[in-house]
Amino acid sequence: MATALQDHPAPNQFADSMNAMGRRARAAAAILATVPRILKDEALEAAARTMRGRVPAIIAANREDLAAGEAKGLTRAMLDRLTLDAQRIEGIAASLEAIAELGDPVGQEIARWQRPNGLDIARVRTPLGVVGVIYESRPNVTADAGGLCLKAGNAVILRGGSECLHSARAIHACLAEGLETAGLPVDAIQLVPTADRAAVGHMLAMAEHIDVIVPRGGRSLIERVQAEARMPVFAHLDGLCHVYLHAAAEPAMARAIAVNAKMRRTGICGAMETLLCDSAVAQTLLPPIIDDLVTAGCEVRGDPGVRALDSRVVAAEEADWRTEYLDAILAIKLVDGLEQAIAHIEAYGSHHTDSIVTADETAAAAFLERVDSAIVMHNASTQFADGGEFGMGAEIGISTGRMHARGPVGVEQLTSFKYVVRGTGQTRPG
Amino acid sequence: MATALQDHPAPNQFADSMNAMGRRARAAAAILATVPRILKDEALEAAARTMRGRVPAIIAANREDLAAGEAKGLTRAMLDRLTLDAQRIEGIAASLEAIAELGDPVGQEIARWQRPNGLDIARVRTPLGVVGVIYESRPNVTADAGGLCLKAGNAVILRGGSECLHSARAIHACLAEGLETAGLPVDAIQLVPTADRAAVGHMLAMAEHIDVIVPRGGRSLIERVQAEARMPVFAHLDGLCHVYLHAAAEPAMARAIAVNAKMRRTGICGAMETLLCDSAVAQTLLPPIIDDLVTAGCEVRGDPGVRALDSRVVAAEEADWRTEYLDAILAIKLVDGLEQAIAHIEAYGSHHTDSIVTADETAAAAFLERVDSAIVMHNASTQFADGGEFGMGAEIGISTGRMHARGPVGVEQLTSFKYVVRGTGQTRPG
Repeated sequence: MATALQDHPAPNQFADSMNAMGRRARAAAAILATVPRILKDEALEAAARTMRGRVPAIIAANREDLAAGEAKGLTRAMLDRLTLDAQRIEGIAASLEAIAELGDPVGQEIARWQRPNGLDIARVRTPLGVVGVIYESRPNVTADAGGLCLKAGNAVILRGGSECLHSARAIHACLAEGLETAGLPVDAIQLVPTADRAAVGHMLAMAEHIDVIVPRGGRSLIERVQAEARMPVFAHLDGLCHVYLHAAAEPAMARAIAVNAKMRRTGICGAMETLLCDSAVAQTLLPPIIDDLVTAGCEVRGDPGVRALDSRVVAAEEADWRTEYLDAILAIKLVDGLEQAIAHIEAYGSHHTDSIVTADETAAAAFLERVDSAIVMHNASTQFADGGEFGMGAEIGISTGRMHARGPVGVEQLTSFKYVVRGTGQTRPG
Repeated sequence: MATALQDHPAPNQFADSMNAMGRRARAAAAILATVPRILKDEALEAAARTMRGRVPAIIAANREDLAAGEAKGLTRAMLDRLTLDAQRIEGIAASLEAIAELGDPVGQEIARWQRPNGLDIARVRTPLGVVGVIYESRPNVTADAGGLCLKAGNAVILRGGSECLHSARAIHACLAEGLETAGLPVDAIQLVPTADRAAVGHMLAMAEHIDVIVPRGGRSLIERVQAEARMPVFAHLDGLCHVYLHAAAEPAMARAIAVNAKMRRTGICGAMETLLCDSAVAQTLLPPIIDDLVTAGCEVRGDPGVRALDSRVVAAEEADWRTEYLDAILAIKLVDGLEQAIAHIEAYGSHHTDSIVTADETAAAAFLERVDSAIVMHNASTQFADGGEFGMGAEIGISTGRMHARGPVGVEQLTSFKYVVRGTGQTRPG
């Protein structure tokens, strides 16, 4: 494994080493761009096999991280995200195999047409180049991001948080072993082998060597990356998702979707944070929903109209409409129809995922057209906002940006394209 | 027409005015995003009609620019790019009508599929938002860029060079008239109404208000925009295009393509700048090509092997392989086969457009796969590198970037997309 960088090298040496990683990544990307699918899949499968053979070593590395994390006073939730056991490692290995089974996007014809002069024009997927992934305490991102980038023909530079560095190194070593087994350049998947926080700043400035940055982690990381990166970023800052219960919502469906969207998992970006309900149907729809939520341990905050329906509802403040709780807390607001609902979502939402529940097709069509979010839904739970659920395979994240990738960022979104023009000697007149 | 900005306002007032333009553009974009096609087309057609009715006024405005340009000592080529006459104005009006005839990309389903749980998922085109276009002396860009952005549902902020400001204002007034006729927000197409150069710097920093910048002009403008822009840029810095005559090239086809790729128009980005030829066939293929080129007034530079074929060939230097002449000058280099040709193109090219001439399908396939350019061609002239020739309609430029848009940037490339998920009450298990 690469150990060119020390934990606290001198600044110049550090910059040189980071740039050298970038150059190696670029060279590896040039090779990866045209390797046949079978070699990439072999590397992924060999990495999975290696990982299964190294479970004790990976767990031992993870214990080092956990011990340091406990000493540092990480929260229980952070320690849980950091923890690896045999079952989680098996899950990571299986994910690599699932990536191997995905179709190879590189070389896919997205479109092809003929011109009157006989020119045949195809738009064909190509790799993006070099991806930089900056993550925090989840060691599994090492394998998931590394595997997805490899499948899309990209080289990747991974920068895991200092909290998970030993675990990430152990997982990265399995990926490197897989690349070697398949005869692919080991530099295709590189891990910044230092805990030095300056590495992030360097990566964000390396626009010559890194084509796109994918940050995975908390709000402060995403904000920093979006502010500093000199290259495009695939990310979402917030997942402030809404469900809107329209006057024509079917009550049982409204109840099932609202409860699921909030409570299935409260910590994911597709979890509902604000429930909007048409005033006209609030008395019918909301009481059973509030009851289900409170019973399930959810704190419900609401505007005066909502509070009048159930004494357990706490007063919502202006800040609540802007808050991504990522927890068992929900804000509920009454609105007077579709226009107010859309206006609220556009004013307070994060353009991630928003859903309308209604039996009225006209209202649904207007909502789907006019709500400007990466994912808009009709009669479905926002918890489906996930590349796997969309049938796109594994995802490296969800983007709320409008450029290149929007919504789940899977293997196809990690590609670019080029035009392939086939002629029979055509020259351009005039 | 908007005249909120004076020619040399105080710095703060200036920044305020630019930001106000940005906010108005954002508001207009929100309206444009969902207006029906018929209104956008009506605005384009009304603008064309208005333009035809104002030919003398537009020519008079253009004369002001020309007089100032002559006084300033602009080159003949620059003055030519700046000049409008009745025929060119008719061409601009006709371009607006051609944009009206293009299909509306907004709302198009790019893909649609069903999931086993019954969810129906569609990827649907949406506008990008607000486009910033920074151009130099070509007044027609005002209408072309304004019209294309409008068709794609985007608001646009246009910043024409000081050389063409009077002409651009006269054309912009026609577009504003078209928007008013159709009842669309006039802020959908705004022109920075000042010659102050600081406007460019302001636009490049306005990431909150402008989603993508399209620079149109010379190398120094593109370099500045790529270095300073805080938002994505669709551009190409150079069009250093190659034609490679492979050993299996059919001689007559090689000759026709090489001469056309260089000489049809020497000043466009798709013009060939370097001709590569396999050594083994140089004596057969090159003499008639060199003769045609020299006869047509082209200066031919070559390596020693090429100079040995024709005494009129001047010695090429290292710098020639890196030069986009945009003129009747060609550099010719002999290579020993496909690998050397690809290596030269990757080392010296600009990833714009490169073509192989060969009857060998295996060599062609390798070239098309491995040359990492926005457009790769087989048996066709590089002069076809153009959105119109590709059947994509008008283009706002050609991008050599790998993100979002690559190759000709037409109306579809000026869009983003979102996911529309239609359910029947699905909730996510587990």
